[in-house]
Amino acid sequence: MEAATPEVQARVRDSFERQGLMHHLGARLAEIAPGRVHIVLPCRPEVTQQHGYFHAGATSAIADSAGGYAAYTLFPEDSSVLTVEYKINLLAPAEGDHLEAIGTVLRSGRTLTVCRLEVYGVQGANRSLVASGQQTLICVDKRPER
Amino acid sequence: MEAATPEVQARVRDSFERQGLMHHLGARLAEIAPGRVHIVLPCRPEVTQQHGYFHAGATSAIADSAGGYAAYTLFPEDSSVLTVEYKINLLAPAEGDHLEAIGTVLRSGRTLTVCRLEVYGVQGANRSLVASGQQTLICVDKRPER
Amino acid sequence: MEAATPEVQARVRDSFERQGLMHHLGARLAEIAPGRVHIVLPCRPEVTQQHGYFHAGATSAIADSAGGYAAYTLFPEDSSVLTVEYKINLLAPAEGDHLEAIGTVLRSGRTLTVCRLEVYGVQGANRSLVASGQQTLICVDKRPER
Amino acid sequence: MEAATPEVQARVRDSFERQGLMHHLGARLAEIAPGRVHIVLPCRPEVTQQHGYFHAGATSAIADSAGGYAAYTLFPEDSSVLTVEYKINLLAPAEGDHLEAIGTVLRSGRTLTVCRLEVYGVQGANRSLVASGQQTLICVDKRPER
Repeated sequence: MEAATPEVQARVRDSFERQGLMHHLGARLAEIAPGRVHIVLPCRPEVTQQHGYFHAGATSAIADSAGGYAAYTLFPEDSSVLTVEYKINLLAPAEGDHLEAIGTVLRSGRTLTVCRLEVYGVQGANRSLVASGQQTLICVDKRPER
Repeated sequence: MEAATPEVQARVRDSFERQGLMHHLGARLAEIAPGRVHIVLPCRPEVTQQHGYFHAGATSAIADSAGGYAAYTLFPEDSSVLTVEYKINLLAPAEGDHLEAIGTVLRSGRTLTVCRLEVYGVQGANRSLVASGQQTLICVDKRPER
Repeated sequence: MEAATPEVQARVRDSFERQGLMHHLGARLAEIAPGRVHIVLPCRPEVTQQHGYFHAGATSAIADSAGGYAAYTLFPEDSSVLTVEYKINLLAPAEGDHLEAIGTVLRSGRTLTVCRLEVYGVQGANRSLVASGQQTLICVDKRPER
Repeated sequence: MEAATPEVQARVRDSFERQGLMHHLGARLAEIAPGRVHIVLPCRPEVTQQHGYFHAGATSAIADSAGGYAAYTLFPEDSSVLTVEYKINLLAPAEGDHLEAIGTVLRSGRTLTVCRLEVYGVQGANRSLVASGQQTLICVDKRPER
């Protein structure tokens, strides 16, 4: 996969590091390509639901961020990205050493971008699709940091 | 609002306490009525996105849990609940002292249940809708704890 | 329910009459209020699926149009409305003398509007919710008629 | 693409022919493979919205049917398929000689099946993605024809 330019990578990493939630969950950026971003979430009790699987909220959180940053790689420099909405199907109990969420831009418009969201459960060499979704994002003027 | 029976309340609280993610985010159960559950999430840096607002993933996580437990209040005793899918619109930047997510059963079937999801940002006496969604859940035989 | 102004009603009716699909299905506008529109679809073999119920596609089509026009009632005069996306749950087999779709604006922004979609199956005095959804719309400059 | 068995093809065609709406819109089955079905809808004024493009309701109706029949190709012989819910993004104005909707099974379970939905606008040799979505279906015992 083609990598994003160093400038775009830096822009995505700077923003990701300011996401308190991603840090708190233990998620990390794994790949940043133009229109595609991967985020990895290791399994820990802090991200589980009542049966010990990854919580749908954790699965969705990394999927949402992966899609948001995938869109952001294609945005102009002085802009910001907001999630308008997303829909996600939890296809199977989410388990494994870690989850890998992949956000891929399906259509990039001037105002709105639509991404496909996929989350895989990874256990050693095994990799299975545990969630699939679709997301709409909006490009806005960079809002000042609070 | 009518409260759920003590047995149902205990069943919901027991399950909620086993959700590592809800504990890790700092979320707590606020109300448990038949077919309706409220979950509260106080604002902390650990649940934010890059601009300091609540992260869509945190907003969605409590909405998903609120809907799941709302469905669960109407399920038979020996069953368990799984999220099939949900869709959520982030209507406005999510800010405030805390978020309050409300899951309400729209239709309860033998196999599938559909819930409405609403999340409010609460700042003192002000309360505004920051997210709205819809969720499908499935009732399954209680799976053994891992 | 408060009625929309005559100007808004005319604007909605003019647009609806140009929707070949609504005419072909036999749908008609039933109520036009600010931020809320009702569309009625009588039962005919032309709108059914393989078991004789209303086809999910017909149910969705009137829900989509009801939401689109609900948003449109709040738009400036020289604008147009496009559906960005919607999600709909088919809650029960859709049957009855007719369906009534209700689109209600949940949040109206400068660019994006979010609507709740509800469809009822109506048989004499009985009325039951057969579909429920949520929709995102965008306000665009009026595009010239083709 | 591998074709479905003659039995499965016959089962899908029989059901499709009983869908009054598909006939009324002028849609036809184009391909039936295991876990994938294509439906084609020629452009006619009867399927348009107010600007002369395909109506989102028509676009969605063929997408919903394509996904439903894609799921159905993998179901046991004595079963029936119902749409639980779907979500669809209208990515671009839908235009062309005809639309082609493709439903593809992402995950097939005993009770629930999840499909990806794609709709292309086709004009001569040009083909562009105009809608993309995701759908949940349920396998039920064959219900008697009404």
